[in-house]
Amino acid sequence: MNWSLIANLNGYVLICLGLLMVLPTICSLIYKEDVVYDFLITIAICLVVGFGLSKIKRSRRDFFARDGMIAVGLCWITASLFGGLPYFISQEIPSYVDCFFEAVSGFTTTGSSIVPDVTALSKGILFWRSFTHWIGGMGILVFIQAFIPKANERSMHIIRAESPGPIIGKLVPRIQQTAAILYSMYMGLTILCIVFLLVGGMPLFDTLCYTFGTAGTGGFSISPLSVGEYNNLYYEIVITVFMLLFGINFNLYYFLLLKKFKSVFKSEELRTYLFIVFASMILIALNISKMYGGFFEGLRYSSFQVATIISTTGYATTDFNLWPMFSKSILLCLMVVGACAGSTAGGIKVSRFLIILKKIKLDIQRLIHPQKVSAITMDGKIVDEVTVQQILTFFGCFILILLSCILLVSLDNLDFETTISSVFTCIGNVGPAFGLAGPMGNFAMYSDLSKIVLSVAMLVGRLEIYPILIFLFPLFKIPDLVNPKKFYKHSN
Amino acid sequence: MNWSLIANLNGYVLICLGLLMVLPTICSLIYKEDVVYDFLITIAICLVVGFGLSKIKRSRRDFFARDGMIAVGLCWITASLFGGLPYFISQEIPSYVDCFFEAVSGFTTTGSSIVPDVTALSKGILFWRSFTHWIGGMGILVFIQAFIPKANERSMHIIRAESPGPIIGKLVPRIQQTAAILYSMYMGLTILCIVFLLVGGMPLFDTLCYTFGTAGTGGFSISPLSVGEYNNLYYEIVITVFMLLFGINFNLYYFLLLKKFKSVFKSEELRTYLFIVFASMILIALNISKMYGGFFEGLRYSSFQVATIISTTGYATTDFNLWPMFSKSILLCLMVVGACAGSTAGGIKVSRFLIILKKIKLDIQRLIHPQKVSAITMDGKIVDEVTVQQILTFFGCFILILLSCILLVSLDNLDFETTISSVFTCIGNVGPAFGLAGPMGNFAMYSDLSKIVLSVAMLVGRLEIYPILIFLFPLFKIPDLVNPKKFYKHSN
Repeated sequence: MNWSLIANLNGYVLICLGLLMVLPTICSLIYKEDVVYDFLITIAICLVVGFGLSKIKRSRRDFFARDGMIAVGLCWITASLFGGLPYFISQEIPSYVDCFFEAVSGFTTTGSSIVPDVTALSKGILFWRSFTHWIGGMGILVFIQAFIPKANERSMHIIRAESPGPIIGKLVPRIQQTAAILYSMYMGLTILCIVFLLVGGMPLFDTLCYTFGTAGTGGFSISPLSVGEYNNLYYEIVITVFMLLFGINFNLYYFLLLKKFKSVFKSEELRTYLFIVFASMILIALNISKMYGGFFEGLRYSSFQVATIISTTGYATTDFNLWPMFSKSILLCLMVVGACAGSTAGGIKVSRFLIILKKIKLDIQRLIHPQKVSAITMDGKIVDEVTVQQILTFFGCFILILLSCILLVSLDNLDFETTISSVFTCIGNVGPAFGLAGPMGNFAMYSDLSKIVLSVAMLVGRLEIYPILIFLFPLFKIPDLVNPKKFYKHSN
Repeated sequence: MNWSLIANLNGYVLICLGLLMVLPTICSLIYKEDVVYDFLITIAICLVVGFGLSKIKRSRRDFFARDGMIAVGLCWITASLFGGLPYFISQEIPSYVDCFFEAVSGFTTTGSSIVPDVTALSKGILFWRSFTHWIGGMGILVFIQAFIPKANERSMHIIRAESPGPIIGKLVPRIQQTAAILYSMYMGLTILCIVFLLVGGMPLFDTLCYTFGTAGTGGFSISPLSVGEYNNLYYEIVITVFMLLFGINFNLYYFLLLKKFKSVFKSEELRTYLFIVFASMILIALNISKMYGGFFEGLRYSSFQVATIISTTGYATTDFNLWPMFSKSILLCLMVVGACAGSTAGGIKVSRFLIILKKIKLDIQRLIHPQKVSAITMDGKIVDEVTVQQILTFFGCFILILLSCILLVSLDNLDFETTISSVFTCIGNVGPAFGLAGPMGNFAMYSDLSKIVLSVAMLVGRLEIYPILIFLFPLFKIPDLVNPKKFYKHSN
């Protein structure tokens, strides 16, 4: 393992974090809040530790996929450990475990919160909370790769480990340029969202916070009622549209810029994503129309909630915890499905589900017509067997981790609905769950153990399992106890 | 498709069913119940329709895997449609959909019931309900293959489609003999269980009913309190041990008979199964010890409940719906895990989970040491890539069907816990769920649609997906609407 280079990368991340923290510091300065000192202390800590780590001399030059995985996993944990410091130093969140949870929830763009009353937080802290969504959305390391020179072949391992989705394509031959293009488009869409909200009359502070959450598909809110606070149809439409837009593969925006409209239109993932979105919106609207006095009023709420859950953002305009079970089941399914690969959204991703469905279809087809030889195609291209197997393994792994987390979180003895849906929402990076952790509730009632388990679930969801699982690998030795080698020796 | 042969097979199944129904008829005769006439009418219907179907002239001789799948799927549906007739003709269960649900639940050895009060049923009907578990346990078609001559190469397709587990090995070169050996061992263990319960003083009628449920890992009970009615430690221990025994791969019993103890000892699935069983028993006992005044009293209840859920039987000695969430989560996980392949139990099976875990481990190992070439082994033998992929696809398919069923059942707008756990218990062929459908509840409150969906889930679970999915295959055309061919034509 190339530990010195991994330490360097962690150092860069901390320096970067310290610099990004200047923005919330300015925000607190404007609002004349005391929290400005807490930010300055945190910035100092980040820069000192960051420079220290970045100066560690590299002992070797090789950098493999495993190093990329471990680097990404460690960097995200480091970022969360230090990113939670402002909450802790300011004592606006008294327990450090809570601060860590909130920071992980921010960077992984989950948006689950342990804050019982967000109105008690200072503006600077609210800004930082939402800003962590924006930072985590496109990836901290992708950011560094994009703007720090001398990125080389190792970058691909890092970007592959940090980016969501089964297949990472380079947009342009040079990987650094790819990262820069991705970030520019991300920035562009963010500015567009800010403009639309400002035009509608939303205050600048609110606009920035909600845009950061929308762009990163996070979901932290600055009001206990989330976007529902405004009861403003225009805001809801703008945020709905942008949440859906940030759930689309960014490669497609690049194709749009290059006027390759055919490639966009051809994307099966995009079409399936839109199909799921509209079908869910209509089904839920029909299901809840009685509650809201009519289909169209129902559609207003169902559209926002469907967009917020499938894009794994997690805002709310109504307490969907009170919805009928059918609507809640749809939302539960959307939590695991998630949006498109290569977007800022979490979840398993539409393309993975598509490929699994195609694989099942192919298997049945082979059973019915064994003579016919066929392969799985996506966007007209053949998906090779190895990718299919990786996706299937990913899915299996995802479900097993989900079940393990449910087991651990259930130790808190909360009700069935809260326990199960909390794990779903955290591993899917969505934010709100049902029951006590519903959109109008929070995660404060969980024990420290559960908060750590849910934090791991969020990281597993955001980094798509392996960069986190690689740390837990020693645990895999345990089954060997059940199955010691000596039995083989006897039998063979 | 060889429809004439499939019709013949359905005919044999009906004749067989009619003959097996003689037993409950004798039971009603002994108890001098009117239901005896209803059984006689059903027997007549089964024999007439059965002979009719069996006499259809075969147009062709070829019989492929797909024919095996469709034959098995259809035969199980036919058996359930006719097996529910005694309930309907006697009007002890007034609605035919309920009768169908009860019959499917019986044959698939699930044990979920729509009967609100089993004490209102006649002895003959109670006998038949439990007897369907015994018939379904080892498989109706395996039974026919074992005892009807001129079974040939086609039998393998049928046995493969009907038997649970990823790998079906022939015990002896002749497939018919294999089926006969399996049934003999099944019969032997059943008799052993009957003897043990009789020795303990259980009345003969109760002994037969509980043994049928134990052997088939079914779970229909003759008392609203299930086995808890007796509050008898000896019965509980006997039933616990036999439930666990019927959850073990029958091939291992054959090895025992041949004195191949090493092969039994070598079985990783058996060791993992026992490890899961004992670990769950102890963890739950610790979790519930306060409720029952001590660890050992807790262990008494946890042992029975763990055995009943992992073997997917579904009896109860206590209302585990009232247990803390941690214990309920363990039981929920056991519902999907199930017992060993090649047993009468349902669920995904321990061996499939083992192979998925090994595959994940292998993937991480490959990431860490890319140079090392290794393969997945089970019991010291290499598991080929195709099998691994089939297991992964099976798992993906299982989870997708689970989610679809949750969506459909949630239309009934019952609570989260009841909805989710009902689908888990039905697809895992367990029986009781949590919430309203808990061990002291039933499935009567579900709508007809949900009862049919849950019936399909039970069949999907018992026949391991494909024999049922092959009928739903036309549904797979729907996604093509989202993805019409013409888009390809444009783009290519």
